[in-house]
Formats: sequence, C-alpha cells, structure tokens
Amino acid sequence: MYDNKFSEDVGSFFRSPVREIFKRVDLNAIYSFAGGYPSADTFPLEEIRQTMSDVIGKYGGQAFQYGATQGVMQLRQAVAERYSVPVERVQITSSSQQGIDVCTRVLVDPGDVILTSSPSYLGALQSFRSYRADIRGIAHRERIEDYRRAYEETIASVKAEGRKIKFLYMIPDFQNPSGESLTFEERKMLTELARTHGFLIVEDSPYRELRYEGEDVPTMYSIDPDVVIHLGSFSKIFAPGFRLGWAIAHPDILDKIYVCKQSLDLCPPVFDQYVAAEFLKSGRLDANLKKSIELYKGKRDLLLSLLEQYMPEGVRWTHPEGGLFLFLTMPEGFDAVRFYDTALDAGVAYVAGEFFHPDGSGKNTMRMNFSFMTHQRITEGVKLLAEILRKQQN
Amino acid sequence: MYDNKFSEDVGSFFRSPVREIFKRVDLNAIYSFAGGYPSADTFPLEEIRQTMSDVIGKYGGQAFQYGATQGVMQLRQAVAERYSVPVERVQITSSSQQGIDVCTRVLVDPGDVILTSSPSYLGALQSFRSYRADIRGIAHRERIEDYRRAYEETIASVKAEGRKIKFLYMIPDFQNPSGESLTFEERKMLTELARTHGFLIVEDSPYRELRYEGEDVPTMYSIDPDVVIHLGSFSKIFAPGFRLGWAIAHPDILDKIYVCKQSLDLCPPVFDQYVAAEFLKSGRLDANLKKSIELYKGKRDLLLSLLEQYMPEGVRWTHPEGGLFLFLTMPEGFDAVRFYDTALDAGVAYVAGEFFHPDGSGKNTMRMNFSFMTHQRITEGVKLLAEILRKQQN
Repeated sequence: MYDNKFSEDVGSFFRSPVREIFKRVDLNAIYSFAGGYPSADTFPLEEIRQTMSDVIGKYGGQAFQYGATQGVMQLRQAVAERYSVPVERVQITSSSQQGIDVCTRVLVDPGDVILTSSPSYLGALQSFRSYRADIRGIAHRERIEDYRRAYEETIASVKAEGRKIKFLYMIPDFQNPSGESLTFEERKMLTELARTHGFLIVEDSPYRELRYEGEDVPTMYSIDPDVVIHLGSFSKIFAPGFRLGWAIAHPDILDKIYVCKQSLDLCPPVFDQYVAAEFLKSGRLDANLKKSIELYKGKRDLLLSLLEQYMPEGVRWTHPEGGLFLFLTMPEGFDAVRFYDTALDAGVAYVAGEFFHPDGSGKNTMRMNFSFMTHQRITEGVKLLAEILRKQQN
Repeated sequence: MYDNKFSEDVGSFFRSPVREIFKRVDLNAIYSFAGGYPSADTFPLEEIRQTMSDVIGKYGGQAFQYGATQGVMQLRQAVAERYSVPVERVQITSSSQQGIDVCTRVLVDPGDVILTSSPSYLGALQSFRSYRADIRGIAHRERIEDYRRAYEETIASVKAEGRKIKFLYMIPDFQNPSGESLTFEERKMLTELARTHGFLIVEDSPYRELRYEGEDVPTMYSIDPDVVIHLGSFSKIFAPGFRLGWAIAHPDILDKIYVCKQSLDLCPPVFDQYVAAEFLKSGRLDANLKKSIELYKGKRDLLLSLLEQYMPEGVRWTHPEGGLFLFLTMPEGFDAVRFYDTALDAGVAYVAGEFFHPDGSGKNTMRMNFSFMTHQRITEGVKLLAEILRKQQN
C-alpha cells in the first residue's frame, strides 16, 4: 500500500542483525556473547539515585526544561576538561550513535566514499548505507608500510573513479568488533593521509577509558585536531540508558552539526545531562569506572583462558587490551551465519563477523562480547559453544 | 578550510531564529513571549523525584541499560491505551521533533513536495528544508469550500509540474504559531484529499491535551488511520527535558521509521521512558496536567484581556482554545523582523511571524507565547510591547 511512498534512502536501510537477534530471543534465557551491553552490575544504583536527588535540589525546574542545542554547559565543561579541549569544541549528542549519524548527514552525499577499517562497527555501516555512501573497507596489516600501501591503493582507485572520499571512520581503541587498537605510528600515518588527500577522520572511541593493560595511546584528534572529529560516549563509562555522547571538533564543523541537531531533536535529554555532569564532577564516575575496569578485566581474562582451554584446533582469537569484545576466526570454510541457528538452538548467541565487513567477507569470523554475562555464564557459554563447534567439525 | 567538505543538504540548513534569540539574550532578564517553553511551575519536582526512586527500585539496572528501538514496552502500552490504538502502532521517539525529522527522512527526496499550513511550525520547516523538500504553504480560509479549493489548486499545480506530494504536515490542535484549530469537517476534508491524491498526512499534535475551552475534536489519525501518521509529545504534558514523544501509524510505515531509528540513535532515553510510563500509569500525569491546564487558561485569559486593553488600534489577534500561543497581525506595512531590535533593546521578545511562513510572507505578524512567564511579567511585558508599538506608529 505504501510501496511508492518512501524516499530513496529507505531502499538502502538495513536492519541491525544484532537488534533483530534481541527481538528473537530473550537475552537472559540464553548464553549471549552477542550484544555490546555493559554489565548492569556496573550501574551504581544508589549513587545514581542520590545524584538525581541532588540535581533536582540544585537545579529545580531547569533540569526538566528545554536546553541548549549544544548541550548543558556544565556537561560540556566537564567533557572539555576531561579531554583537555576548549568548551567551544564540545557538542553533546543524544548518544554517540547520533554522533556518527549526524557526521554522515552533514558530510556525505549519495555515492560519496567513506573509508573504514574492515571489520568495523555495524551501527556505523548501517548509518553510512542509509545515506547511500560508497563504503570501502580496508583490513589491518601487521607492517605499517603494508598498511599505508593498502590505504594509498584504495585512495588512488577512488580518485581514478572520480569519486570523493569524505571521511575515514576509525575506532582506534579496542575496536568493535575486533578488540584491537591502533599504535601511535598508525594513527599518525592515517591523520597524515587525511591531510594529504583532503578528507576528514571520524574517530569513534566509546571504549577508550576501558583499558585493562598497556599504556594509553594519544587520540587521533590530539594528533591533528583540524582533520579529526572525535566521538565519545557515556554508555560504557556510565550507563547506556541515558543516551549521551559527545563530539569534539573544529568549530566550523561543529557549527554544521549544531544546526543539523536543531532540526533532528532540538537538544539532548536535559535531566540526563545534569545527572551525567554531576556524576562526573563529584568524582563518582571515576570511582565507578575503576570498579568497572576491574570487573571487565576479570571477565576478559576468564574468556581468554576458557578459549585457550576449550576451543577446537584451528580457531584463533584476538587479545584485546580493553573494551568489550574479542574476535574469533574459525577455519576457512566455516560459515558463522549458517551456524547461527545451530548455536541459538543450543542456547548460545554471538554475532557473525561478516556483518562487520563492508564487502561481506569474513564469513568464518564471529564477535564475542565478554562484558554482559557473569563469570559462571561465560564459562558455561564457552563450553557449550566449543562443544557444538567440535560436533560441527566432525 | 572545510568549504567543499559538506554534503549538499548542508546548503539548505537554516538556523532557528528562536534558538538564535536564546543565544543572544538571557530569557530570564527580558520579557519573553518568544519561546515555546512550558512554565517550570508545571514540573512537579517532588513527584518526579519519588517516581524516579520508584523506577530504580522496581526496574534496577534495566532502567539504565540499552532498550528496544521501538521504545520501552511499558511506555508504548501506556500511550496505546491513552490513544486507543494497538501497541504495534506505537513507536516512542526521542522528542516529537525527531518524529518530524524521521518522517521526512523516510518519505522525502530532494525536490519532493510537502504541503503545510501557512503559517506553520518553524522546527518542521527547518527539518523539511534540510532535506531540500519543496514546501508549499496554504493559508487557512474561513469557508470550507474556499479552503478545499485552495488545496485542490495547489495539488493541481504540483501535478502539472510533474512533482510528487509526499505528505501534508498539519498541526490541527491549537496550532503553533497561530493557536487555531481545525474543525472536524476540515480534518475530514483533508484526509479525503490525501486518500484521493495519494499522499500521507503527518499530524503533529503536541498541544492536543492542553484545552481551555470548547470540545475535543477527533484526531485526523482516528478519521483515517491508513493515511495519517500521528505525532505526540511529553514535552507539554509532562516536561520537555525528557525529550520523549511518540509516533502512531500503520505498521508498514512504522517499520521504516524503526529501521531508520536504529541508525539514528539506537533507542530513546531508557530511564526517562520508565519514568514517563510510571508517571502516566500512577495517575500523576493526569493530576498534574489538570493543574497545568488551569494555570495556562489563566495566563491565556490574562493575555487576551491585556491585548484588548493596551494594544493600539489596528492590531488583531487569534483567540486560541488551547495550547501555548496566540498570533498577532499588525497593520499592513509593519515589519516584525525590523522591529525586533527595538523590542529587544526595550527588553521584550517575540518571534516574527514571517519565519513561520514558507514563502516569507506574514511580515506584519508575530507569535506570542503565554505559558512561560508569570502573570506579573506577562502584564508588564504587554504594556511595554504596546508602548513601543505606539511609539513606532507615531
């Protein structure tokens, strides 16, 4: 009945396979390595309740009124201090997913090229496709010369086609889905390529503050603040139910994001912003983050040791220094999408890796989340997954 | 530096003159008839605090976790009951502004026609322009035959140009900015035109429940649920700081909005949704709404009597039966945009009516809000405005 009614963009919409899984199964009834959910154990309920009460006492009706499109000043200032940037460079977003979407909206016309890592974050690919962007995924290479060459070849071929690269989308810290990070040299190489070839970089870094080992690497934004838009999120360091993130960028770019956001939703959720600002400024966020890091480190260590112990021969996985995910590569010929029904029937869920690959490759890969389940359920889940994988191999 | 970097849409972005005013002046330091803010007196702080505490106790971590893209089931159900529609037809939006924007995104390609009333809501015009829609405004006519003919003429001329009308955007209840409502016959006539000519209607009704006199008129959605997308908002019946609204529509349309929303922001703010659901189900919302209606009725009556008493000869205004606004028409030749600096210098703000007219007409009109200020400040503000208008005339 509505067939000829929709816009052309709608033809490029695709459903998140992760969200479709959530519609199909009750997450709590199965062993789920599928989502990217933080553990609800990291939400400090009593402290949140107290902070909310403080905000109501301190700001009264202002906390429930319309707010500035750029975000509540207290929260912008808190983010500016945390990332050592001027407050004029901070825009609060209604989730970092909105940050990705609004960047695409203000930068990309149908047919424009977006470079991404391959694999890359599904929600970003979903947004890019919805604007009919031409996505070119580039796999990581061990040697930096090879990695640079892979980029240079793609850039050259895009130019040869007469197309325009609008930006490179990159998750440099504990990437979703691979769990891997870029070295300082790799970050520098990419910002130099961006400057040389006249494209921007959207640096999406929701997991940056969840580091379990190793040393912090500077943000790409700090390496070249003129070509990088940095996106951050409160979902992993506070709670995703608030839907709050931020964009840090050159004021000329932020200005377009700001005007766009006026017509998108006027302003981010106001009360939630006051709560986040108060939680940050009171030191509660950092204290809680410390506990979350401890909790997640334990879960990561557990998952790594279980994989070592139970996975059949020929399965490889990444060793993430932080974040919420690791990435499994099964023997050639394995099809993680086709295996999905077997796994769900057995009561265990993951996300097939091919969804993260812009070109549909990576059929023998899968993403595993280790933040959501308890130690006991992670243990039982890995044993179960290993068992059905073995059966499949025989 | 970024001049050739942005998408084509960006060339059609325009800044909300209302939000620009807020950047320029401190709302509390002047007499402001400019915004569309509810009175902070209508936010029941203690009851909200209690409701929040109840939600934390009842739902625990779930209230701070990621949620379903369609919205939290408890809130969808509460809206479905309130509007007597099946829950499958309810999508929660992150503000009703998002409802407008996402409808435009899934329905409109550049150059497609959107019909609107003239004047119409600024934030909607802003969104439509950002997608490069061709907006055709149609002024209201007293006699329904004239009103229908005005629509038919516009529809015929759009067809003659070979263009496609995607939807009619209409605020049938206490319109922003005019304060006026459509009769049942007018609503019926418009839904029939939509069905006959194959376009949809986006019915935006954030003020519907703020009625101070007269009888409710059925929603356009209830007249023809197949061609109407109904948008609602918690901003005026609860508090705008939560950024929550809803869309009610045929499941085939909602499905596209749902997939679009996945990449826009994953889901609406979760905790806020539980609070709104709890506030609704406990009866607190209706009890509070009753008080708001009493408060706003008093302010409307006051404003109407002050205009009668103080406005110079030749100024006319609407008599809204509800909502937050009335609309002034000054004598021919008056320019409300040019007068703006005089008004701000004197310490009084309004929004010039021409911004609400898609064709830039209505230069001698202005919108006045009566919900935000106290009785005393409304009184002083009207006297001041009348005084500078008189000076201008002499």
